[in-house]
Amino acid sequence: MSKKSEELQAYLKEISLYDHVVELLYWDMETSVPKLGQAAHVEAMTKFSTDSFTMSTSEKMGALLDALAEPEEYEALDDMWKFIVTRMKRDYDKNKRIPVELYEAFTRERAESGNAWREAKNASDFAMFAPHLKKMIERTREITAYTDPGKEVYDALLDQYEEGMDSASIDKLFEELKAELVPLVDKILEAQSRREDAQEDALFRKTFDVNGQRAVQDMLLEYIGFRRDAGCVGETEHPFTLNFNSKDVRISNHYHEDEPISAMFSAIHEGGHGIFEQNVNPDYDNTAAGSCSYMGIHESQSRFYENILGRRRSFWTPIYDRLGELLPEFKEIPFDAFYRRINRVKNSLIRTEADEVTYCFHIILRYEMEKAIFRDHVAVEDLPALWNQKMQEYLHITPQNDAEGILQDMHWSDGSFGYFPSYLLGSIYDGMYLETVEEELGSVDRLLEEGRIGEITKWLNTHIHQYGSTRTPKEVLAAVCGREVSAKPLMRYFTEKYTEIYDL
Amino acid sequence: MSKKSEELQAYLKEISLYDHVVELLYWDMETSVPKLGQAAHVEAMTKFSTDSFTMSTSEKMGALLDALAEPEEYEALDDMWKFIVTRMKRDYDKNKRIPVELYEAFTRERAESGNAWREAKNASDFAMFAPHLKKMIERTREITAYTDPGKEVYDALLDQYEEGMDSASIDKLFEELKAELVPLVDKILEAQSRREDAQEDALFRKTFDVNGQRAVQDMLLEYIGFRRDAGCVGETEHPFTLNFNSKDVRISNHYHEDEPISAMFSAIHEGGHGIFEQNVNPDYDNTAAGSCSYMGIHESQSRFYENILGRRRSFWTPIYDRLGELLPEFKEIPFDAFYRRINRVKNSLIRTEADEVTYCFHIILRYEMEKAIFRDHVAVEDLPALWNQKMQEYLHITPQNDAEGILQDMHWSDGSFGYFPSYLLGSIYDGMYLETVEEELGSVDRLLEEGRIGEITKWLNTHIHQYGSTRTPKEVLAAVCGREVSAKPLMRYFTEKYTEIYDL
Repeated sequence: MSKKSEELQAYLKEISLYDHVVELLYWDMETSVPKLGQAAHVEAMTKFSTDSFTMSTSEKMGALLDALAEPEEYEALDDMWKFIVTRMKRDYDKNKRIPVELYEAFTRERAESGNAWREAKNASDFAMFAPHLKKMIERTREITAYTDPGKEVYDALLDQYEEGMDSASIDKLFEELKAELVPLVDKILEAQSRREDAQEDALFRKTFDVNGQRAVQDMLLEYIGFRRDAGCVGETEHPFTLNFNSKDVRISNHYHEDEPISAMFSAIHEGGHGIFEQNVNPDYDNTAAGSCSYMGIHESQSRFYENILGRRRSFWTPIYDRLGELLPEFKEIPFDAFYRRINRVKNSLIRTEADEVTYCFHIILRYEMEKAIFRDHVAVEDLPALWNQKMQEYLHITPQNDAEGILQDMHWSDGSFGYFPSYLLGSIYDGMYLETVEEELGSVDRLLEEGRIGEITKWLNTHIHQYGSTRTPKEVLAAVCGREVSAKPLMRYFTEKYTEIYDL
Repeated sequence: MSKKSEELQAYLKEISLYDHVVELLYWDMETSVPKLGQAAHVEAMTKFSTDSFTMSTSEKMGALLDALAEPEEYEALDDMWKFIVTRMKRDYDKNKRIPVELYEAFTRERAESGNAWREAKNASDFAMFAPHLKKMIERTREITAYTDPGKEVYDALLDQYEEGMDSASIDKLFEELKAELVPLVDKILEAQSRREDAQEDALFRKTFDVNGQRAVQDMLLEYIGFRRDAGCVGETEHPFTLNFNSKDVRISNHYHEDEPISAMFSAIHEGGHGIFEQNVNPDYDNTAAGSCSYMGIHESQSRFYENILGRRRSFWTPIYDRLGELLPEFKEIPFDAFYRRINRVKNSLIRTEADEVTYCFHIILRYEMEKAIFRDHVAVEDLPALWNQKMQEYLHITPQNDAEGILQDMHWSDGSFGYFPSYLLGSIYDGMYLETVEEELGSVDRLLEEGRIGEITKWLNTHIHQYGSTRTPKEVLAAVCGREVSAKPLMRYFTEKYTEIYDL
């Protein structure tokens, strides 16, 4: 290993310690910090995040990367370091153009905006959040102008969350999906309306002990393969996943006494993200190769566990009795009723609680909102009305207040514009993976029924997880499925599954 | 405000951000981090703690403090800044003698030792912990030789946790206490043995819902005045309190299904520490004036709430019904049986679960152990036997294993030698405060019965809490009680209370 390469490693190691505490401050901000303690956390987060940014965009870093990009040095690197140097050089060139004062201000404002969003949501008052949202939009434009000069801002954002994606590709995929999904959903909803069963609904209308829900969550996480020696679970209003490195991957969950299914599927979803990160090649830890930085690919894993596996009858066959043992309220719920419940298609207000089919509309709506913000320059004050109008268009319902409307998601509060499409891209990829998994491993239902879910996880570890960021989304799909992205497999999956469930 | 003084403030602000993340890493290490994530936390903790130490002992800091200690600058400072400069100058002179490499190594080893202790305790295997304990003892000697050259090491440690205390003073206090306590406890134990009541014991031998225990904890914390907008509660095996500043004060608790009283009294104890820190003058935040650095004084507050108030019948009179509402298992427990239970005196193995009377022996034992380590150089291998011998001497029982013997407390694992006496000093102070409170506010029982606990808390806020570190223990006692420390009031309290309870 060359001297330059050792120097880079040492420098990355140092920077990673700054990132480590920034991540921890973020985790704590979500899970623990009391209201009056937020300001000190924001202060620390701003300092250490800015320090990390300053080091990552320093002359020293530039010189190291330049030296290692020289053919003689570069050719001596192994594949991992070749990837790291190339990736870092690209990001360095983009990020060094951002003035450090802008980065610092944005870091502080993001954290403040996140706190304001929480308060606005609790008060169901968009006006409390609007100035912060405006600021987030402005700063995003400003920063993107530095990182991607000359590029259309929303395309730059999409690429940032899912490398290689732009709105032309997404438009095509989403339109392809919509063409078949809209009529399918109409048919399903009609069938669902005939099927409404007050007696069956009543089975779920009781109090589900929160400790029992935690026990079920722990059982599910163990079942799908989330490792507790390299991970933990926290409690937050909005479940999410955060990873320091492959050895410390954290997910969070929420528990509602009157709604046990939410915590179960959040656990499976976040557990899917968590399993991904725990199984990235540990040699990549704390480098640009480690962790998966493609959100579409990331969501494809969480949503594969949550939907493709988790909403399947066979997923529950080996464990449904344990559910009743851990959460006795389930003893009175027949397996069939549970299965119908977790696949009940209904137009509803909250994205994270939606079934897997109407969920697509929640994403398309947000994608169109983001285009309206960044392309059509729709004013922040006009966004709630636009939101509600799109809710009517796609889901035929109108939120009664901001909390169940435009304020429901945290993403925009920290400037994560362009993230939302990742969820649906993830599902689209999942349709493709499912076909490949069945070609290679045989029937997923048979594997699950026989309690062999570990073989599916192992397949995902081998084909996807271990690579972390070293394969771009396009490369993942080419390597795993041998073809370009298409929404057709997802539509086939939806059509087959719901035709059977609803006797269409 | 002078330029130098502004410079010092800015520098302190910067250092406080490093301390902030070190505290957070510590909190997370105790509450959340998975096993495989510990190493990265230790690494970050070592880095940022060492950075903070380096800044605190830098030439720049020395020059600032020297400049501000010059009469012209010093006289222009307000009282708070006078205190800060004087205190920091004293600490600077001590700490700058410690080689930074030694500090760094000790920081890392402490964290590793803490993790090793947890594992050793779980395995109940002292041998796993012994090399770390040996290292902690060596490093403590080494560092004390730098900070307090020429001073007897154990006296230096005692002074570090309770300024102005040394073993001569503590010997005298503890001997004074023992002379009356030993015969009193003998009488109580004899009475207790006649009183053993299997039927009453059976009332407590059931499963107490953990959620209910959390609800009781929250009610108790609110009742005594712990503020949730400036504090939160985490879950750890060993309850403790940690504060970032007066606006973010955290306590932790544990919950045992078969033992609800432990979580209640841990909540009241840690809540007492927490109330102290939340009520320090917020102007002192992140300076040497803020937080209370005297552990005897600190424990005097936690133990005042836990014992002087919390084990009193009148404390529970206004809230005992709520206990039954929140933890229905308590509905079957008559108030009298509960009151007897929380004051049942029995020789037992675990310090933190002991009654307030025999608790004193647990501390005297640890104090004698620490003297044996630092004065008599007893070898680490011989400590478990010495522990067991002293358990026989003071409590007439012998631990069956290391986990319930020498491994039970975490203090030595991070090098906190000299802390233990603080607990008993705290109780000794409490006896004195109690007399003063009753002189000034009237009967504590009447106040509590009338639900006026807030007036007692306010009294403590005014007379003790707000001062943070600006008054030394001797100054606190002089200001609050107008006299020197004495164990007599505590003995009077014990004698009166238990003579009544046990009809002695």
